[in-house]
Amino acid sequence: MQSGLKLSKLMIQSIEDGFEVIFNEKVLLRHTLESPMLFIGRGQDSMDMYRGNFEIKDYVIERSPLLYADISQQEHEITVAFSKFSNIDPVMTLQIKEEDGRLSVEYHTNDESINRMWLRTPADPDEKVYGCGEQLSHFNLRGKNFPLWTSEPGVGRNKKTYVTWQADVLDKAGGDYYHTNFPQPTFVSSKKYYCHTDTTAYADFDFRNPHFHELQFWEIPKKTLFETADSFLELTGKITNLLGRQPELPDWIYNGVILGIQGGTEITESKINKALEKGMAIAGVWCQDWQGKRITSFGKRLMWNWKWNEKEYPGLDKKIPEWKKKEIRFLGYINPYVAIEGDLFKEAEEKGYLALNHQGTTYLVDFGEFYCGVVDFTNEDAFIWYKEVIKENLIQFGLDGWMADFGEYLPIDVVLSNGADPKKMHNAWPALWAKVNYEALVESGKLGEILFFMRAGYTGIQKYCTMLWGGDQSVDFSLDDGLASVIPAALSSGMIGCGLHHSDIGGYTSLHGNKRSKELLMRWADMGAFTPMMRTHEGNRPADCFQYDDDNESLEHLARMSNVYTALSPYTKSLVKENAKHGIPVQRPLFMHYEQDEKAYDIQYQYLYGRDLLVAPVHQENQTDWEVYLPEDEWVHIWSGEEFKGGTVTISAPIGYPPVFYRKSSKWKELFSQISSI
Amino acid sequence: MQSGLKLSKLMIQSIEDGFEVIFNEKVLLRHTLESPMLFIGRGQDSMDMYRGNFEIKDYVIERSPLLYADISQQEHEITVAFSKFSNIDPVMTLQIKEEDGRLSVEYHTNDESINRMWLRTPADPDEKVYGCGEQLSHFNLRGKNFPLWTSEPGVGRNKKTYVTWQADVLDKAGGDYYHTNFPQPTFVSSKKYYCHTDTTAYADFDFRNPHFHELQFWEIPKKTLFETADSFLELTGKITNLLGRQPELPDWIYNGVILGIQGGTEITESKINKALEKGMAIAGVWCQDWQGKRITSFGKRLMWNWKWNEKEYPGLDKKIPEWKKKEIRFLGYINPYVAIEGDLFKEAEEKGYLALNHQGTTYLVDFGEFYCGVVDFTNEDAFIWYKEVIKENLIQFGLDGWMADFGEYLPIDVVLSNGADPKKMHNAWPALWAKVNYEALVESGKLGEILFFMRAGYTGIQKYCTMLWGGDQSVDFSLDDGLASVIPAALSSGMIGCGLHHSDIGGYTSLHGNKRSKELLMRWADMGAFTPMMRTHEGNRPADCFQYDDDNESLEHLARMSNVYTALSPYTKSLVKENAKHGIPVQRPLFMHYEQDEKAYDIQYQYLYGRDLLVAPVHQENQTDWEVYLPEDEWVHIWSGEEFKGGTVTISAPIGYPPVFYRKSSKWKELFSQISSI
Repeated sequence: MQSGLKLSKLMIQSIEDGFEVIFNEKVLLRHTLESPMLFIGRGQDSMDMYRGNFEIKDYVIERSPLLYADISQQEHEITVAFSKFSNIDPVMTLQIKEEDGRLSVEYHTNDESINRMWLRTPADPDEKVYGCGEQLSHFNLRGKNFPLWTSEPGVGRNKKTYVTWQADVLDKAGGDYYHTNFPQPTFVSSKKYYCHTDTTAYADFDFRNPHFHELQFWEIPKKTLFETADSFLELTGKITNLLGRQPELPDWIYNGVILGIQGGTEITESKINKALEKGMAIAGVWCQDWQGKRITSFGKRLMWNWKWNEKEYPGLDKKIPEWKKKEIRFLGYINPYVAIEGDLFKEAEEKGYLALNHQGTTYLVDFGEFYCGVVDFTNEDAFIWYKEVIKENLIQFGLDGWMADFGEYLPIDVVLSNGADPKKMHNAWPALWAKVNYEALVESGKLGEILFFMRAGYTGIQKYCTMLWGGDQSVDFSLDDGLASVIPAALSSGMIGCGLHHSDIGGYTSLHGNKRSKELLMRWADMGAFTPMMRTHEGNRPADCFQYDDDNESLEHLARMSNVYTALSPYTKSLVKENAKHGIPVQRPLFMHYEQDEKAYDIQYQYLYGRDLLVAPVHQENQTDWEVYLPEDEWVHIWSGEEFKGGTVTISAPIGYPPVFYRKSSKWKELFSQISSI
Repeated sequence: MQSGLKLSKLMIQSIEDGFEVIFNEKVLLRHTLESPMLFIGRGQDSMDMYRGNFEIKDYVIERSPLLYADISQQEHEITVAFSKFSNIDPVMTLQIKEEDGRLSVEYHTNDESINRMWLRTPADPDEKVYGCGEQLSHFNLRGKNFPLWTSEPGVGRNKKTYVTWQADVLDKAGGDYYHTNFPQPTFVSSKKYYCHTDTTAYADFDFRNPHFHELQFWEIPKKTLFETADSFLELTGKITNLLGRQPELPDWIYNGVILGIQGGTEITESKINKALEKGMAIAGVWCQDWQGKRITSFGKRLMWNWKWNEKEYPGLDKKIPEWKKKEIRFLGYINPYVAIEGDLFKEAEEKGYLALNHQGTTYLVDFGEFYCGVVDFTNEDAFIWYKEVIKENLIQFGLDGWMADFGEYLPIDVVLSNGADPKKMHNAWPALWAKVNYEALVESGKLGEILFFMRAGYTGIQKYCTMLWGGDQSVDFSLDDGLASVIPAALSSGMIGCGLHHSDIGGYTSLHGNKRSKELLMRWADMGAFTPMMRTHEGNRPADCFQYDDDNESLEHLARMSNVYTALSPYTKSLVKENAKHGIPVQRPLFMHYEQDEKAYDIQYQYLYGRDLLVAPVHQENQTDWEVYLPEDEWVHIWSGEEFKGGTVTISAPIGYPPVFYRKSSKWKELFSQISSI
């Protein structure tokens, strides 16, 4: 073993029984006989999918440490040849080099039987870790492991809640703390580096050990990249240099709330008028049933044949431009599946655009009392065809936006046109689905004018998805699946390059006796005003959910919060621009601007809204006051004008007055000080 | 590699890329490069105990196949030296030999870092596997894995039941299909061999693979023994030759039912009289609160200071001989813990007989609102002292029997007198506890006269425990934790040498809204009459449980069933004798006498009661008829006299007339034919 090799910022250094790879003075890899950095082996997975919920197990046949490392230096890189024993041929070779300012570790092996790899990276006991996609239960990931597999996030997401148990027993759908629509094999360390691996295979990142992180991959990945920075702001900038950045939002978004409405043209029109009468600032209406709906035991479901349903929305083609004149946009809905009853299915099947089963016929996915085909995006013609569906049926029809739902359901036993292993394509699907939507916008010349929003994600989503939404929360105050959960969701996705996030105001899932209360809806709207996009949802069972227009008080409340949102829009717009330019998320963890504040690293239910606002949503019911942690600074309570220097404060927090503070020294101070008069 | 070595019945044979060990013409070990027979490695366990419920996880650091085997032959044995690679030193050596008619495989290694071993033994896809202690959910173990660690069996034992979920959330106590008071690393194959491993470490036997069984051990065990036979009867005989056999039951057992009574001398007396008035055949009364009781949120609990409580049972010393004259025995209760408030605790602590914690003071176990010391049976003086407690306080006082409760709770962080790792002693504890009781009987000259019954078990229990009882069932009809579950429990423990089994008539655990119905109690008594011992239990919450004397109908019903039991006793006694002599269990799986009947191998809710009776307890509620599978033979329905030749039949099965059939050719035919007139 050689020591002290130095290649620009990259250095390999000999230590007792091993070596360290140091990059920009950070130890990013460490290998010793006692704690080897690489393990390889073989596993036999078992994966069961039931409506987007996966039961995944692994039988690990072999897991061998690669104890012996032979290091050699070429001009621009270091090669480390690993073997299980000192006197046998190496089984895996790593090429370690600097590449575009990053530390690149490429993996090579000739042993095709290897299908598991575990990489250990050095950790400190007090280090924190963030990212891994959009995580709903934990922002700091330390102390747990996180399987990374896009799926339904689960109903309840906590094995100790009765809702979760019922969802598990009845539908295998309860989920757990790590289930998410948007996982990603990328983490950010509080030691100011990120670690990103180029893979779409199932992975499981384990942050439980005090001395190392252990990253498990169900393949030999292509490579792992590390990049360091002096600040977290710089670091998210670097992540988005690598992965891409979201464009700015269309200007019309800032006009107010987007009302989630269903039921046809007449109902939509009347709801618009009712809201306008109350002085509501409306950016648009979002009618997911614009293409028709069906009733199932789950609740109201959509028709999944992506075109205007004239029967349910008579005259919509005329109404859309009419509403647009009033600055009210019309948004719809689409997903990457086509229902068996529709003509799109028929067309796609005839053209061979649908994924097949092993019998060679169309693969049908059970979506809960109805079946759909999977548009095969690995087939270039199908990809193009679906873009055309979006261009013609959505964009040309006049939609200014839509929910691009799903993306996390690719079955693991489909036969795809490109012959790829569906278990490797499963995690790749969300970004493919985003790309279809993105290119439809670009090719129509509408990028920046039209908005689509997605819940599914994976590496690549950063550059294709114009807006995230937090997926389907339960209509409750639970930490793991209710209002609170969208805060760590926004923060974690923001850490890895998706800085635009919002959620269904009021939540979505009303099952197993769970019904949305008026209080929940109003608290959610309070928070929504301090996110880059406000949008309500009726829920899966609208009759079981309190709706914003169910009484006058909540109608007026939403109207007022929509005006708060609008009043803030110059500031919000500047944040969105910062995200588009520098990859700095709109919703930020407190430590992003208060690096010296140790407490800030563990706060997951508060956020900085840009540099100058601190938001601490009331996420529990029956609260009149709320405890807020303020990093040391000069803070002004936005509603009362009361000033604070930092520390833990308890603030009066009635509905409509969420705990929000602005920095006294902010250049937006003038704007912030006017909010209280709305 | 050499081939065709033959050592008497033992043969080692070369196959492609490996070898097979053949013993009595059965392939018991197989090794190939593709499917190696041995894996070794290292793991780091995490074990949490909460009131006898354990959460156990393992982080497998390394799992390496031992691919290369070097075989050499000595005079009486074969040595196989295994290594990971062909050109390196062997890491493990196996000595394979015939020993007392068994195939013995001894494990040797010099690598002390190894703490995990996986042994694969060859399997056929259609092979069945039984045993692994007392298994309550599955008799045929194929298709699942079975962690082997003595613990509480769980309340509910099925993650899909609401009772289990509540028990999990409130007390971490729900359990799962494999939790049992009595696990054992011994299995019996339908290919007519047993496999027993000499270890007390945590183990996990995995029977999921069609082509091999995989036995995981958290140490390098001493050895594994295999023995083959031509019949299952012969095989259980051989198992009990190895592990020991239970003695015959005292004669007084056959006098009738043992009534579980609590509440003092007067209540006991009055319940005896009431039962006698109804013509009940009574063998004894079992008063677990003879030593006092306390009330906790779980229900009524005992005092745990093992001596007559004169306040609760005034005059008991006089009453016991009085009842005995009427042929009614008095039974009590003890367990291996002493409550902190009692004088036994004080004495044991002073003498240094209690296990310590790492601070060097007495280890206190939380038993649910009270604390106890652990009598340290690894300390010979403590062992002797506790025997004396039993001799003096129980035997000399006049008890004719007792429940020797617990044994499965040894905490994994105690400090024991012999310095042993408590994680290795945990599974050893049940047999140690049985031995304390057994030796107290032997040394008092009372073996065969006094009976104790246990729920905890492990290897060794066979020779020390006079009677098993099925532990704490829920007072319901659930398959995993109700009436049904004690049938596979009896069958599986019978397969590995414990042929005497009974259960609490009516079940025990009434929690989370679960209350015992009259129907459940009566169905349980129906079954109890066809087990070697009948004993009722009031349950943990007597007021929530229907009691046998709550109404006249059930009192008369129990009286009648006690007379059925008594009438059968000459036959039962012959079975118990057979068990003591040949190790053939009293309750037997159907295949034990019908080896050719393929269906018989998967039946777990029926049993043969000896050679000549077939019992199919009604284990669901609201049944009037019951479907029974009869192997091909001449069967007579015991109540109606109707005759059957075999196959699936539906039989009328009102309460009090459990589906029981006798063989027409039985020498006990006369006796059986009289049962219907009771």
